Amino acid sequence: MANNGAKDPLLSGSLDATQKTKQQLLNKRRLLRSRSAPHAELVPTETNCNESIPRTASIFQNLHPSFKRMAIYLAVYLGVGALIFYLVRNQIKGQKTDGILDALYFTIVTMTTVGYGDLVPNSHLAKLLACAFVFSGMALIGLIVSKAADYLVEKQELLLVKAMRMHQKIGSTEILREVETNKTRYKLFLVFSLLLILIIVGTIFLVTVEKLDVIDAFYCVCSTITTLGYGDQSFSTQAGRIFAVFWILTGTITLAQLFVYIAELNTEIRQKELVKWVLTRKVTNLDLEAADLDEDGTVGAAEFVIYKLKEMGKISQEDISLVMQEFEQLDVDDSGTLSTSDITLAQSS
Amino acid sequence: MANNGAKDPLLSGSLDATQKTKQQLLNKRRLLRSRSAPHAELVPTETNCNESIPRTASIFQNLHPSFKRMAIYLAVYLGVGALIFYLVRNQIKGQKTDGILDALYFTIVTMTTVGYGDLVPNSHLAKLLACAFVFSGMALIGLIVSKAADYLVEKQELLLVKAMRMHQKIGSTEILREVETNKTRYKLFLVFSLLLILIIVGTIFLVTVEKLDVIDAFYCVCSTITTLGYGDQSFSTQAGRIFAVFWILTGTITLAQLFVYIAELNTEIRQKELVKWVLTRKVTNLDLEAADLDEDGTVGAAEFVIYKLKEMGKISQEDISLVMQEFEQLDVDDSGTLSTSDITLAQSS
Repeated sequence: MANNGAKDPLLSGSLDATQKTKQQLLNKRRLLRSRSAPHAELVPTETNCNESIPRTASIFQNLHPSFKRMAIYLAVYLGVGALIFYLVRNQIKGQKTDGILDALYFTIVTMTTVGYGDLVPNSHLAKLLACAFVFSGMALIGLIVSKAADYLVEKQELLLVKAMRMHQKIGSTEILREVETNKTRYKLFLVFSLLLILIIVGTIFLVTVEKLDVIDAFYCVCSTITTLGYGDQSFSTQAGRIFAVFWILTGTITLAQLFVYIAELNTEIRQKELVKWVLTRKVTNLDLEAADLDEDGTVGAAEFVIYKLKEMGKISQEDISLVMQEFEQLDVDDSGTLSTSDITLAQSS
Repeated sequence: MANNGAKDPLLSGSLDATQKTKQQLLNKRRLLRSRSAPHAELVPTETNCNESIPRTASIFQNLHPSFKRMAIYLAVYLGVGALIFYLVRNQIKGQKTDGILDALYFTIVTMTTVGYGDLVPNSHLAKLLACAFVFSGMALIGLIVSKAADYLVEKQELLLVKAMRMHQKIGSTEILREVETNKTRYKLFLVFSLLLILIIVGTIFLVTVEKLDVIDAFYCVCSTITTLGYGDQSFSTQAGRIFAVFWILTGTITLAQLFVYIAELNTEIRQKELVKWVLTRKVTNLDLEAADLDEDGTVGAAEFVIYKLKEMGKISQEDISLVMQEFEQLDVDDSGTLSTSDITLAQSS
């Protein structure tokens, strides 16, 4: 149903059109579609999709501004954290390897709320610093999950679909539509795959470098990416902590992102069910009466669209009221319609 | 602006109305408003708001079904967790107090990903069980934060506003509108207050019962509600663990909910800015042309509403196309409008 929808015209039935042949309507449809208002939320996505096909190689050359900002925030946070905890390194007790590496490792274990406890603050100052860093770190991780991570996954998504369909003879338009319809599913699949890879790589690393047995390694991996971090198993060698710095950050963010996508997919499915119900239930005369806003006994296309979208919960009474306020201000001659002369009058006064 | 909007009529300008006096329009407004389609998402909220004023005392008597379901899930999860970890209690090492209490405490420390490490699994079986419980626990906490917690906060919200305005002579309609407009702000304020209370209560408890000094107690509280849980300070007494069972669960969920509300408020503010921009920018002749879907040279109220809502990103081309498909199916005589005879014909065939 969603697939067919994308091919269909905007308000092809038109408002006052009374006697028009199908061919006339079809001709008009092309025009109307190209002239319709841009959908604010979709604009950036559509631009990305269309553009990324010819130049997938340059993905990391022109990154989204919010992604860049997040990367800068993260770099600053980690830099400041590592510096501060390096300065108070004598007030942190536990298994130590290298001064600045331990400080960075401690910052990451704190910000991701893994909190193994293999390094713990041992003075009031260090404890209060840890409190400050865990709250700000949580907020930063939240920002990354809600903005930057989704952007990166979306960038990769199209590559995946392209690769999956390489051997099939499907045009890029079909790929785009396929991606648009199942966006969340693809993103979920991508993030789930990445998480599996991170779990496997982490387990292998812990077995080979930290000399844990396989179950202990897997347990440490799960305990880390979920941010549980009992701390009975953690990264105690220098090599382990260098690996951990990258792996913990990626792993915890990936799992959080996975949960976000599951929630999104869930919402989408319920929303689609509601839309389907609204569109397939029988239209009664009572509906017609309620949708007939101008009380002329018939329901125009635009009236019908507003009625149904409201029933789907996509728009609210307040949304409509706000726009109607502007409409009334612009409709200087109170004719119930806007014309060029209305606009000229309204904006000159 | 939002306040005024709520008073305004639905499509009061009406579609084809050409010569109507203001009084006629005003009379119609009352009618149209009451007959408009229900807004699916808002229905439960509106019902709650209207109903909870006369019977605030019965808030916990008729709870929302999804809240009840979450409470049952949580009870089952905690019951099963406590039972299983009680059965494998000999495979868990660390500071112990009472068999079943420790098992419940361990379940909660695991599901919230606090993971102090004061109790750790000590066999392969116990470790794998902990892995299973931390993943399912995270999912459950996510469900609670996304569904049940918000519901409880919303229930309390109106009580707060009522209490705050008790001494002012404002009718319940004004209170309702005030709440509706600043919903997220009130919820944020409520959850933030609750979090402060939980932090203070937790700190006092740790000082008096677990005999920690104030900074250590505060540090343990922060380390717990953020789910950091280094484990150098935790609940080691029987009384402490009974308190912890309730406090950890409430504290971690409250902080997570606070972050959710901050994100929501952020989105709302940006959305409102976009709406304001769309409504205040000058309407040009190009806009009129693009909004004029039936190409009759003028823009009707419904056309204008659809054009603006699309520009705000509230509805997409696909939303409109889907409804238009149904419209075309119902419009049997291709007149561009729906009448009772269309419906009869379309549904009998």
